[in-house]
Amino acid sequence: MNNFIYDIPTKVYFGKGMIEGNLGNELKKYGKNVLLTYGGGSIKKSGLYDRVKSEIESAGLKMFELSGIEPNPRIESVRAGVKICKEEHIDVVLAVGGGSTLDCSKWICAGAKVDFDPWDFFSEKWADLNGALPLITVLTLSATGSEMDAGGVITNLSTNEKQGRIHHDLYPKVSFLDPTITYSVGKFQTAAGSADIFNHIIETYFTREDGMYMLDAFMEGLMRTVVKYAPVAIKEPENYEARANLMWTSSWAINGFIGMDKRKAWSCHPLEHELSAFYDITHGLGLAIITPRWLRYCLNKDTLYKYVTYGVNVFGIDPSLPPERIADLAIEKTSEFLTKTLGLPGSLSEIGIGEENFKIMAKKACEGDVIDGFVPLRADDIVKIYKMCE
Amino acid sequence: MNNFIYDIPTKVYFGKGMIEGNLGNELKKYGKNVLLTYGGGSIKKSGLYDRVKSEIESAGLKMFELSGIEPNPRIESVRAGVKICKEEHIDVVLAVGGGSTLDCSKWICAGAKVDFDPWDFFSEKWADLNGALPLITVLTLSATGSEMDAGGVITNLSTNEKQGRIHHDLYPKVSFLDPTITYSVGKFQTAAGSADIFNHIIETYFTREDGMYMLDAFMEGLMRTVVKYAPVAIKEPENYEARANLMWTSSWAINGFIGMDKRKAWSCHPLEHELSAFYDITHGLGLAIITPRWLRYCLNKDTLYKYVTYGVNVFGIDPSLPPERIADLAIEKTSEFLTKTLGLPGSLSEIGIGEENFKIMAKKACEGDVIDGFVPLRADDIVKIYKMCE
Repeated sequence: MNNFIYDIPTKVYFGKGMIEGNLGNELKKYGKNVLLTYGGGSIKKSGLYDRVKSEIESAGLKMFELSGIEPNPRIESVRAGVKICKEEHIDVVLAVGGGSTLDCSKWICAGAKVDFDPWDFFSEKWADLNGALPLITVLTLSATGSEMDAGGVITNLSTNEKQGRIHHDLYPKVSFLDPTITYSVGKFQTAAGSADIFNHIIETYFTREDGMYMLDAFMEGLMRTVVKYAPVAIKEPENYEARANLMWTSSWAINGFIGMDKRKAWSCHPLEHELSAFYDITHGLGLAIITPRWLRYCLNKDTLYKYVTYGVNVFGIDPSLPPERIADLAIEKTSEFLTKTLGLPGSLSEIGIGEENFKIMAKKACEGDVIDGFVPLRADDIVKIYKMCE
Repeated sequence: MNNFIYDIPTKVYFGKGMIEGNLGNELKKYGKNVLLTYGGGSIKKSGLYDRVKSEIESAGLKMFELSGIEPNPRIESVRAGVKICKEEHIDVVLAVGGGSTLDCSKWICAGAKVDFDPWDFFSEKWADLNGALPLITVLTLSATGSEMDAGGVITNLSTNEKQGRIHHDLYPKVSFLDPTITYSVGKFQTAAGSADIFNHIIETYFTREDGMYMLDAFMEGLMRTVVKYAPVAIKEPENYEARANLMWTSSWAINGFIGMDKRKAWSCHPLEHELSAFYDITHGLGLAIITPRWLRYCLNKDTLYKYVTYGVNVFGIDPSLPPERIADLAIEKTSEFLTKTLGLPGSLSEIGIGEENFKIMAKKACEGDVIDGFVPLRADDIVKIYKMCE
């Protein structure tokens, strides 16, 4: 069991109507000039834009805007945000959206504090990260957990690269989680978001390190929560109980708590990041396709025990069955949940992706070496997993 | 489901040897004058005193001391600590001990910031709490969760009163949780501490409010953790896995996370506080005696469903049994765990407590009115529960 430092500073307002009377007060603690960041126009249609604007105005703050942040947010949006922050002396960034808007805003906050191009954070300038503007978020989609974690992923389409890093300065100061805001999230995004949450827990749970039982038990509970409530949210979009459980689970799946005593790398995420960097697909959809194949590929006599506790404690498989049978069933149930139950495409061919880039993507995913995760994966392993996804 | 604000600011260094190289750095962020608080001499015998002192000295800080803080810490110790803080211009308090030392130190930190007697925090002066000195803790006993919560309980023997309150300013800034420090905790204290942890979860879990499934699942995992590891720690005091799981569970059982969406009062704690206020018994022991009787008393057709999920998910009772049978078995297993398995006395008579004060204790426990918890308890209900404990 590894030592760790627990230090999650994000304050969360959770529940219906918590924005009103609280958002303005939190923003004005940090200054006068607010940069509001968001994606497409959906927050205008839903009325959320007006609610947020009204809070900013009531608090007597000055609002600037950056809209149009893309799914798989691009470095160009980060640059545009940094420019506004510098020119307008922004004191605090308010990100209203899902993981893409939040991730992009994190790097805007960091980019505003340095004089080099923010893409350089992902290479030689990492050590020069110099704090970040305070970030406050209003979450509109339960998925990435960006609302309570310290990481963000950015795409550079000019180089087909998708890069992410984690730094304590990138934790949002405050996040507003109102489950009713996610009522308008459609079936596909609800499904893909749930697959994302589920995979974050899988990536942490499947390890061969000695971890803490109490954390494994928490992870099993989080996975059962997704299995229980994702189908409900898809069927009944305005089910508060389902939306609330998914929302709080999305935060705790990745805020660091469940994996602080672990050191091993994640595996499905680097494989998926290449898919969405090359084909701009929805991240959660890519994970839904990869996860069960990766589980199948990593199953062997040394890893079997982990599949057994997973199958029994997450899917309620009969513990008296032979371990190999439990593992098989667990993988089948994972696949069934992520595709049939969530209603997501189950293979790369279904979304029009062929094997043309498997080798180059595999090499990039392991950075030419190895992903040192649950089972070490080299480029030829990764190609095999991509082929299983065809 | 109630709205809530999640805001737990405590930073935790978890693991073997984390004090060295970190404690001094954390202390000196807050100033130069450190008040070290502790209980009896056990930290001198174990070498912990020297480890802590060495960190303070290496950081170039000036150390003052308050020792002799009692189990069920008394208001006189708070007053003594406040006096030192004021006279010596203390910048930061370092509490080294279990829940008693930590609770006492919290009120020292608050008392140092006001000019009235700290006992008045528990009555007319509560609203005048005016911040608190920063508190850093080194935990020596897994039990109360005081290392990561915002509450503290103080005893006034002159009035037979035990009072506790919660305030955000009372969260420790930093806590050091090194499971190896608890290797020297004896069987009785390990058992009583585990009963305390277990009861904190019970108090939150048994509610008739609609809570979040993901939190219930976490609570069930925490309870299973205590059931699994408390007997191991009692049998093998130097089992790192057991001590680590109990330690991190103690923090999460009461830091607020599991119960933020709940509003109902706790029940066993006020009943126990009267016992230890009148008889100065170990808090966890009192809880071990009260908990199964309280569960029995609260069982009725409206509350039955909660006993069923508890029995099935914590003790693995066969879900196909009739609900009433599951509830009975769950209470029996709770009683068996808290007494036989933990090796604690199972009744008030075994520890020499008779019925002479039941009525006055009951009246005090409900403050002359009602404890509005899982099942509302008035004085006559409480007397009945005390009698069940005889």
